[in-house]
Amino acid sequence: MRIMGIDPGLAIVGFGILDQRGNMLKPVDFGCIKTETNLSLPTRLKQIYDACSIIMDEHQPDVVAVEKLFFNRNVTTAFTVGQARGVILLAAEEAGIPITEYTPLQVKMAVTGYGQAEKKQIQEMVKMLLSLPRIPKPDDVADALAVAICEAHSGSLMNE
Amino acid sequence: MRIMGIDPGLAIVGFGILDQRGNMLKPVDFGCIKTETNLSLPTRLKQIYDACSIIMDEHQPDVVAVEKLFFNRNVTTAFTVGQARGVILLAAEEAGIPITEYTPLQVKMAVTGYGQAEKKQIQEMVKMLLSLPRIPKPDDVADALAVAICEAHSGSLMNE
Repeated sequence: MRIMGIDPGLAIVGFGILDQRGNMLKPVDFGCIKTETNLSLPTRLKQIYDACSIIMDEHQPDVVAVEKLFFNRNVTTAFTVGQARGVILLAAEEAGIPITEYTPLQVKMAVTGYGQAEKKQIQEMVKMLLSLPRIPKPDDVADALAVAICEAHSGSLMNE
Repeated sequence: MRIMGIDPGLAIVGFGILDQRGNMLKPVDFGCIKTETNLSLPTRLKQIYDACSIIMDEHQPDVVAVEKLFFNRNVTTAFTVGQARGVILLAAEEAGIPITEYTPLQVKMAVTGYGQAEKKQIQEMVKMLLSLPRIPKPDDVADALAVAICEAHSGSLMNE
């Protein structure tokens, strides 16, 4: 089972790809897609869409897990992130890959077992669970890996 | 000059296509793309993207004018509309069509000359300016035509 986790954004999209074998999680690839603020919005959206399509095509994930909005963010942020998220979901849909969505609370619970966990605690757990030498940077990459871990745990729960 | 105006949304995307010759505006086609609420979000986004691509391919507009968010809407609405807007902008970008964006205030000013205009007044002006027998329904279609008229007026101002 290959899982791709995504943390959507317009300036930075974090992604992380894991292979799950039973209780084992192996990181396959992770990183981020960055778009320049001096480019037009449609150009940036196309860059995100194209990059996501290429990554999905290369790694052929069985499922794409995408973080849901932090609803405590402001309306302008929601709108901006929403536009980027739209083209990410489209890329997965066009690739025929099933999509799951998780709230930040679900991700926290799945990764740390604790809904009030701090960002730093989540990142430490991501590092530990994936046996990484250090916490992936920027934060968006660690967040994307956390979403992928959430999918792995939720999926294995459902299969048990 | 062929102008396509779009009023973005997830359940309903309004569109209106006008030909502009000097001060003359001729409606070419208008209508809406509807997506069913019982379908998944990615499926609905793909339907919007595909339908927009087909309409743009059929009518070959020189410019696509898209309404900006009503920033007084709530964060959930902004997020939902944002996702739909993202795939609409992507469709235009993929088609190589220049994109312009207008706020509701700019549209009101361009269509009625009055920033406090009511929805009904805008719709009546759309009907009059395009010599339509009646106000197009649903509202999203009239809104999309209003955005196209705004582009026509702004474009002609810039060219004068």
